[in-house]
Amino acid sequence: MDTMEILSEKVEQGVVEQRFDLQVEGESVPGLRWDPENAGAPRRTILIGHGGTQHKRVPNVLGLARRFVRHLGYSAVALDAPGHGERVTDPDRAARRRRAIQARLAAGPGAGGVAFGPEEAREWVERTAKGMAEWRALLDALDAQGAGQRYGYWGVSMGTAIGLPFVASEPRVQAAVLGLAGLGNRPGSDRFEHAARALTIPVLLVLQWNDELVGQASGLALFDAIGSSEKTAHVNPGGHVEIPLFERDAYEAFFLRHLGPATS
Amino acid sequence: MDTMEILSEKVEQGVVEQRFDLQVEGESVPGLRWDPENAGAPRRTILIGHGGTQHKRVPNVLGLARRFVRHLGYSAVALDAPGHGERVTDPDRAARRRRAIQARLAAGPGAGGVAFGPEEAREWVERTAKGMAEWRALLDALDAQGAGQRYGYWGVSMGTAIGLPFVASEPRVQAAVLGLAGLGNRPGSDRFEHAARALTIPVLLVLQWNDELVGQASGLALFDAIGSSEKTAHVNPGGHVEIPLFERDAYEAFFLRHLGPATS
Repeated sequence: MDTMEILSEKVEQGVVEQRFDLQVEGESVPGLRWDPENAGAPRRTILIGHGGTQHKRVPNVLGLARRFVRHLGYSAVALDAPGHGERVTDPDRAARRRRAIQARLAAGPGAGGVAFGPEEAREWVERTAKGMAEWRALLDALDAQGAGQRYGYWGVSMGTAIGLPFVASEPRVQAAVLGLAGLGNRPGSDRFEHAARALTIPVLLVLQWNDELVGQASGLALFDAIGSSEKTAHVNPGGHVEIPLFERDAYEAFFLRHLGPATS
Repeated sequence: MDTMEILSEKVEQGVVEQRFDLQVEGESVPGLRWDPENAGAPRRTILIGHGGTQHKRVPNVLGLARRFVRHLGYSAVALDAPGHGERVTDPDRAARRRRAIQARLAAGPGAGGVAFGPEEAREWVERTAKGMAEWRALLDALDAQGAGQRYGYWGVSMGTAIGLPFVASEPRVQAAVLGLAGLGNRPGSDRFEHAARALTIPVLLVLQWNDELVGQASGLALFDAIGSSEKTAHVNPGGHVEIPLFERDAYEAFFLRHLGPATS
């Protein structure tokens, strides 16, 4: 059975964008796939995990996907995370969450980071497990389409909350850009730290020195904990949503170094 | 009067290497300059400041210079720092210093960093002032050869001890790669910190997470102190002399982003 159904396709400036639904445990997970036009063989593929309150086609995800396709000749895929994008079932609640995060950002660094109520904490843990299962199902579906693919993962903030334990448990992912996350002070933090220590693949960790949601010590403790022998932290001034655009060049160089040319 | 006398020239694989003497306050300072073969117009030039116990043509300096020439079409120059390379007047003393640093490296991180005796401390401060004056004299000599040059600086460890206060006081240098250095626990540390806070140019700061000579907190305090609005720390695991080779790609991308193409 084909678990990945293409719903539509468009081409913009040499990039093919396909909207698909992925079937995972009875649920339809909306996703996007980007490829070079006239791409033949299976190619290196970057999984892009969006941040909290975002979705699979926010400007940052779309911009990254198009760069990976145009500059490297790679494919890129993104999914709406559980409860995000087209999977929002309660728009009022989603809007309340967005406002809560905006308030935390506005409070600035040193305001104590993210505080979780018990309901929020339970959702966080469930979303992580569900998101991990969906990425695994996506790799199964992509693998079924052709051999020879190698995968990288890019995701910061919630994209790291879900993506770090995912890539730590998934040997098909061979390099990961993570960041805007730290150790301690969060639901499921023991499991997260355990996954960080279990990592062996090369990691580029992006940290913001004035992150309103992640303290300096917390982010550096995550860097310290990551088990990979090759790991690099890129630290820039500025807040949680202010990673400099020039880091995109670093992501490309990192994936190219570890995954190699698009096809081989 | 020409203060920069070319003593010899050789060409290897498209790179012209000139050995020159620079006259600075009655002293001959030995230097090297690398250019693309058949380079006509003045071009972007990277000043490379070597580390303690090293000299102007150690493999790391030579490798960087050739990359800047071959990959970017830039020029590169290096000087023997005061008391280093061809300027060593007491070989036994230089050998003792090398052994002392080797012992500090062997002692590992957490051994308390670098300890300075009073004589060593005085030399450190004098060497910094003298090294800064020599870089300034070199820029004067290069400027006299042709307009339109833009300068970058690359130097870690002692190359930062001399280079950071130099670039902070020298508007002709427009971007700097620094690193393997920190705040506190060193001679002249107030002046060094003051210079760091006065920096305004883009800085790429390279830190080693297990540096035997520079503690994590000390290196991060330097990053924090740097006044530039664009500054990025690249942190990798490993010791003082173990910066990963892939950071060379980051140096190139950094200079290209800030200095632009070789000529314009």
